[in-house]
Amino acid sequence: MSVRAVDIIAAKRDSKSLGEEQIHGFIQGYAAGNIADYQAAALCMAILLNGMNAEETGHLTRAMIASGEVIDLEGIDAPLVDKHSTGGVGDKVSLILAPMAAACGLKVPMMSGRALGHTGGTLDKLDSIPGYSTALSPSRFRDGIEKVGFVMSGQSEKVVPADHKLYALRDVSATVESIPLITASILSKKFAEGAQSLVMDVKCGRGAFMKTREEARALALSLVDTGKSLGRRVVAVLTDMAEPLGFTVGNFLEVEEAIACLQGEGPADVMEISYRLGAWMLIAGGFEKNLQSAEKCCRRAIESGSAFEIFKANVEFQGGNFSELMAMRGRARAEFSRELLASQSGYLSKIDALEVGMAAVALGVGRNVAKDSVEALAGIELLKKTGDKVEKGESIMRVWAQKEARLDVGFSKLAPPIAPEKPSKAPSLILEEVTD
Amino acid sequence: MSVRAVDIIAAKRDSKSLGEEQIHGFIQGYAAGNIADYQAAALCMAILLNGMNAEETGHLTRAMIASGEVIDLEGIDAPLVDKHSTGGVGDKVSLILAPMAAACGLKVPMMSGRALGHTGGTLDKLDSIPGYSTALSPSRFRDGIEKVGFVMSGQSEKVVPADHKLYALRDVSATVESIPLITASILSKKFAEGAQSLVMDVKCGRGAFMKTREEARALALSLVDTGKSLGRRVVAVLTDMAEPLGFTVGNFLEVEEAIACLQGEGPADVMEISYRLGAWMLIAGGFEKNLQSAEKCCRRAIESGSAFEIFKANVEFQGGNFSELMAMRGRARAEFSRELLASQSGYLSKIDALEVGMAAVALGVGRNVAKDSVEALAGIELLKKTGDKVEKGESIMRVWAQKEARLDVGFSKLAPPIAPEKPSKAPSLILEEVTD
Repeated sequence: MSVRAVDIIAAKRDSKSLGEEQIHGFIQGYAAGNIADYQAAALCMAILLNGMNAEETGHLTRAMIASGEVIDLEGIDAPLVDKHSTGGVGDKVSLILAPMAAACGLKVPMMSGRALGHTGGTLDKLDSIPGYSTALSPSRFRDGIEKVGFVMSGQSEKVVPADHKLYALRDVSATVESIPLITASILSKKFAEGAQSLVMDVKCGRGAFMKTREEARALALSLVDTGKSLGRRVVAVLTDMAEPLGFTVGNFLEVEEAIACLQGEGPADVMEISYRLGAWMLIAGGFEKNLQSAEKCCRRAIESGSAFEIFKANVEFQGGNFSELMAMRGRARAEFSRELLASQSGYLSKIDALEVGMAAVALGVGRNVAKDSVEALAGIELLKKTGDKVEKGESIMRVWAQKEARLDVGFSKLAPPIAPEKPSKAPSLILEEVTD
Repeated sequence: MSVRAVDIIAAKRDSKSLGEEQIHGFIQGYAAGNIADYQAAALCMAILLNGMNAEETGHLTRAMIASGEVIDLEGIDAPLVDKHSTGGVGDKVSLILAPMAAACGLKVPMMSGRALGHTGGTLDKLDSIPGYSTALSPSRFRDGIEKVGFVMSGQSEKVVPADHKLYALRDVSATVESIPLITASILSKKFAEGAQSLVMDVKCGRGAFMKTREEARALALSLVDTGKSLGRRVVAVLTDMAEPLGFTVGNFLEVEEAIACLQGEGPADVMEISYRLGAWMLIAGGFEKNLQSAEKCCRRAIESGSAFEIFKANVEFQGGNFSELMAMRGRARAEFSRELLASQSGYLSKIDALEVGMAAVALGVGRNVAKDSVEALAGIELLKKTGDKVEKGESIMRVWAQKEARLDVGFSKLAPPIAPEKPSKAPSLILEEVTD
């Protein structure tokens, strides 16, 4: 096996396309421990530098899926559509989108991740709901989809184990930033969890993993093309992540804001993205043909309260205490807080998503490394957003932490600039939409 | 350390030049086991694909030297010059060159390697001399240089241990074929063994590691430039390796031919290369300024018998039985032999070095993998060379092996084509010479 592994690495090193058998053999061997970490690291670097076409990426995705268990959602009589985001700051869209799409008749088998670096994680947000469990057995997972319309679960180690192993290796070998490897990692998880189609929110900008439009577009194209090579519909929407989404960055703080969104009181930016992604989910699932009517359906799900009802049903299905959750709103906050005041009068020229994200990590919302624990009630509330007028001494942000030292560090990272002129703002957070 | 390793890999991945501290830190950490094989493999692949300039390669060479012991040859009152070859078929030049250069007054601290793949190894050839030991202590190594003028030794594990570790890793991660990595591997070994200057025989052609002129030239330039960045004189000579050198391919067979060369009865091709490389050694050591007079000095060393005398002194110094060695000539052969006969009359249009080298491995001369053992007395004698006229039924080659099965396999690989026309032959084996 070892000789073959070297040949496969050498082929990619020499910019050749790898065949299905080579890719499956390598991933199978790696997952089984017959191919060493150093061989996988060398291959990942060769892939990062020499690329992979959509067909190869499709084979890689399939090989990762084949490395473990696949959630069996056969026989569920509705389109299974999921949404995934590359990670943002203040991005609570999953919490709104899943019940909204379910209210429109889709089934949403959502497996989410945890916060890492400056970006948040849906599982950490859900953990702030009293009693809520994201550890569902495969049968409960299926049950929830059938009964409630959606579930939100953590990823099982038994699903795509090759990706778990490879991701840990990429993290320590400087091979994370490869578009085909990112594509296969995302798609293998999503398709192994039972999704038939996928809407990808590819965040772009200072607060996102993809800093430039070109990188984000390349990832979007790779996701869509690879989906196509697998016979699955993937739609990728590039959205702007220069500023945090909505007014909150935190765990419980974001659940609270998501509830407001589901009750029809969401901020414009969060709702713009939620409606657009929701509309694409309906199209990807074959329920709708055009964006306008699809968006209308999503709005109706919010305005009628049906999305909120489904959210409530999900909280209860997953063991959460819904009335306690509702009672916590506006009250459950970390022990220490401080307000950031405007140092001068003028307009907020930029609330930088990366800066706010890094401050949130320092406050305890997120993680620097995977083993860090997070605080449910820490976070940041934005009282003003980019372009808002402020008077000297007026509160711009409110910051919470469970420990005073963390508050100090997090607070010190926040310094949004104020200028005499109102900054120009892009008319929409939706930058581009890529479909096959 | 692990975080820094990732940063160094990422820098090379992004085509940045690595600094001295980064390279030393990585190699030191890797040799000490603080940096993992998978990180080193990822870095090697990034270096292979993104390259390294001469300065970086110089830092890498120094870092490898610093990873272990350095042979102390301080105070020896003559230029210390070595020669290294990238590996060929029938290449017994080291056995001629070392005593010849020593006869001209140079000191030659030669550490050699073993056969691998289709190319031979000087140590395996020396092992066919009864009693001869290539395992010298550092003090015996120095002693032999002072008393005899040259020594031929195996590489100690204590010298450049980082290279030993890295080379083993490169072998299984498809990262052997990187010019800066090859350069640092060669130069670190040669300079750690005490050489002040180096003449490199960069073999080029089907029987060589570098198949094309471009690859060979790129390696030659890298060796010379890196030598310069280290303040050491390196001269690289590109020589043709389309056909085996001389008339023998084997271990004892080649020692026998080398003795003939030292006695003034060497074949033209072997002597052409020996004189040219010897001349460059005299120039690199500062003894001569022009090639013609340097070559004259080398010829004199052969013609006067002084090179042969020094060879004898070396054999005795390293424990070999010289009279037994001389008596073995023409008689010590492996048990089974067979002759390859011309299937038609005409001219031998090509004796392919790679084909002959692979046949020799099958006969037991060389190794497929490092742990294989070799036969001292197996091998191939070429009775004709490319361009020679042959009659149908005439012997072209004689083949020896210790086991009949090996003879069969080796013999079956040999099929030099015969054509009615005499092939054109290049006028010289010396293709190019690169100096700083």
